[in-house]
Amino acid sequence: MTSAHAGTQPRITLLTDFGTADGYVAAMRGVIASIAPGAIVEDASHAITPGDVHGAAWCLSMYWKLYPAGTTHIVVVDPGVGSERRAIASHVDGRFLVAPDNGVLTSTFTSASDVRIVEIEAERVMTGRVSPTFHGRDIFAPAAARLATGTPIDALGTVIDDPVLLELATPVREEGVVRGSVVHVDRFGNLITNVPAAWLDSDMETEVAGRRVGLLQRTYADTEPGRPIALIGSADVLEIAVRDGSAAVALGLRAGASVVVRPRA
Amino acid sequence: MTSAHAGTQPRITLLTDFGTADGYVAAMRGVIASIAPGAIVEDASHAITPGDVHGAAWCLSMYWKLYPAGTTHIVVVDPGVGSERRAIASHVDGRFLVAPDNGVLTSTFTSASDVRIVEIEAERVMTGRVSPTFHGRDIFAPAAARLATGTPIDALGTVIDDPVLLELATPVREEGVVRGSVVHVDRFGNLITNVPAAWLDSDMETEVAGRRVGLLQRTYADTEPGRPIALIGSADVLEIAVRDGSAAVALGLRAGASVVVRPRA
Amino acid sequence: MTSAHAGTQPRITLLTDFGTADGYVAAMRGVIASIAPGAIVEDASHAITPGDVHGAAWCLSMYWKLYPAGTTHIVVVDPGVGSERRAIASHVDGRFLVAPDNGVLTSTFTSASDVRIVEIEAERVMTGRVSPTFHGRDIFAPAAARLATGTPIDALGTVIDDPVLLELATPVREEGVVRGSVVHVDRFGNLITNVPAAWLDSDMETEVAGRRVGLLQRTYADTEPGRPIALIGSADVLEIAVRDGSAAVALGLRAGASVVVRPRA
Repeated sequence: MTSAHAGTQPRITLLTDFGTADGYVAAMRGVIASIAPGAIVEDASHAITPGDVHGAAWCLSMYWKLYPAGTTHIVVVDPGVGSERRAIASHVDGRFLVAPDNGVLTSTFTSASDVRIVEIEAERVMTGRVSPTFHGRDIFAPAAARLATGTPIDALGTVIDDPVLLELATPVREEGVVRGSVVHVDRFGNLITNVPAAWLDSDMETEVAGRRVGLLQRTYADTEPGRPIALIGSADVLEIAVRDGSAAVALGLRAGASVVVRPRA
Repeated sequence: MTSAHAGTQPRITLLTDFGTADGYVAAMRGVIASIAPGAIVEDASHAITPGDVHGAAWCLSMYWKLYPAGTTHIVVVDPGVGSERRAIASHVDGRFLVAPDNGVLTSTFTSASDVRIVEIEAERVMTGRVSPTFHGRDIFAPAAARLATGTPIDALGTVIDDPVLLELATPVREEGVVRGSVVHVDRFGNLITNVPAAWLDSDMETEVAGRRVGLLQRTYADTEPGRPIALIGSADVLEIAVRDGSAAVALGLRAGASVVVRPRA
Repeated sequence: MTSAHAGTQPRITLLTDFGTADGYVAAMRGVIASIAPGAIVEDASHAITPGDVHGAAWCLSMYWKLYPAGTTHIVVVDPGVGSERRAIASHVDGRFLVAPDNGVLTSTFTSASDVRIVEIEAERVMTGRVSPTFHGRDIFAPAAARLATGTPIDALGTVIDDPVLLELATPVREEGVVRGSVVHVDRFGNLITNVPAAWLDSDMETEVAGRRVGLLQRTYADTEPGRPIALIGSADVLEIAVRDGSAAVALGLRAGASVVVRPRA
């Protein structure tokens, strides 16, 4: 197959809090394979903590726009399944996103220049009966498969302009002092904050939960093993790390901890 | 590639208790890629508890028939590897299933209308020497790859009609009272039973391990957080759940717990 | 699609210690999908213990050569990311391997007959700015995607002949007595050693950490449940196992434990 040829294969990614051992993810994959047999389906993650909408939103923010235009991203972290919460499909800067309307897509909506959202009407996408407890299989998978095979997004339901948005902690900058917070702890124990790189320079000192971390460094290797260090992480925000260790464990901190960055004294 | 074109790509799914960190799954994928380079290979799960044949059987039941006809499902949860247990390939209602003959395919056989089973003869599928401890790589992966590339199932070995079947707990119904049991606990702590939806109506009350749960509800959101609730789950059987929590933890129960459903008093 | 047709799709595998929940793996997949949309991308594992270069090397050794020639294997277990350690791409017996130059590819280099290694120059592969903390996304994924789409390896950087190699424990054989060690413990608790099958015969007795295990057997089922057993494992080396249990737990041992195999007394 030539690349050009293959490049036209539709692509779908999956992000859930389902784990894999119960067969829920494979059920979604089976539905997609039946509706869109030519689609490439990639796992983003199924290891989100059950019900952790913020964690899923963070994970999604790392990759959704790195995929080529036309990709369909499914996100099912859905503690409100079966309630009155809406199911939505959206077209955001060229990518499709399908998810419960619980705020998990917040940062894609607020960072994009082009957003179109529809409330999915189940009867337009479902292939059989819809279980009130498994919309991943019965609504989100078929909706994504239909988008991937060329169904226009407007055919899935009615346009809406009031999606649920998460209230995200916002960093502030006053008289040269930046105040933010830890918004994510990754597998390595890195404390990832909401302080944008653009607000920082190498002459500023970081403090986390009242503890001095020091001047901004370049990478994990720029300190001794076991020592906390402040740097610009791969998401282009301030991150506190410990070389060859976990900053979260070493400092006893988690998401929500306060961060202050100020000019060197 | 057009969808029609891609739709002819053979598809193989993998279900094991191998985890991924030891490279066993990737070894199976490498063998498949060498024999059937055009096959799409999808992970169902590698997170089955080591040796848990019932857990794998449950997982498989959630997805095997949602995949399109022609799909080949591999299941390798195989505590008896290298013993006299047979390796089998089967064609069940249009899908192929390849597994050790230890009962893991029981529910596919008993629920299907069309079943053909062969005992795999290793020398008909293997590509090199067969390790007595890793039939996933040396027998099941090549067998599935050959099915996926069009080898007729009868070319893999001799037809058998006496596959090993698991003895599964069976629910009973007497004078309107249903007695069953919890057969699976999922990642969310939901207690999934063997009581079919068809035996239930909204006027019946559920009791699990002697504790009253109440009338049948529709979905997780139909109660207060922390309260147990009975509903029809996505596998079309009775399920006991706790909203925003784990019923298994809250009630201290696991697979095997008894369930009684009776008409409202 | 015909197999021949599909067989020309480039194939990339991913091995990391990233887990999946932070979106790091999906970010790499997104970059690959953008550069090489026709490539098949397969997960080997993302469950390597953070920073465990030896564990990743073991995992890789199980599968890299089972994939067809032309496959590109990415390995990112990279505690030294952002330091002066080099990034390398290599062509080894027909497969491509892309990794940090920290020894993780040692056994592929030492077991191969044909090895060519280049130090990757970031500016030849990157698509944007390179984060000092995430070379998986910014260097290794684009390097692999370029190899997969036909870029010659020499176009990625300068040839080197001094890759970092791990110092691996080497078994010795003196007067018929073999001394080796446990080099890996797998998910099932099997103690996998560095003693090659070719040095063993069925008349030899195994001792691990001073404890007698007995004569070599054929498979896990050749003993009683709970009893340790010595056998030739699927990597063609001596392995100590416990039927239906974990040898590592039962014997209280881990990687590094000594093994002696001697002729029956």
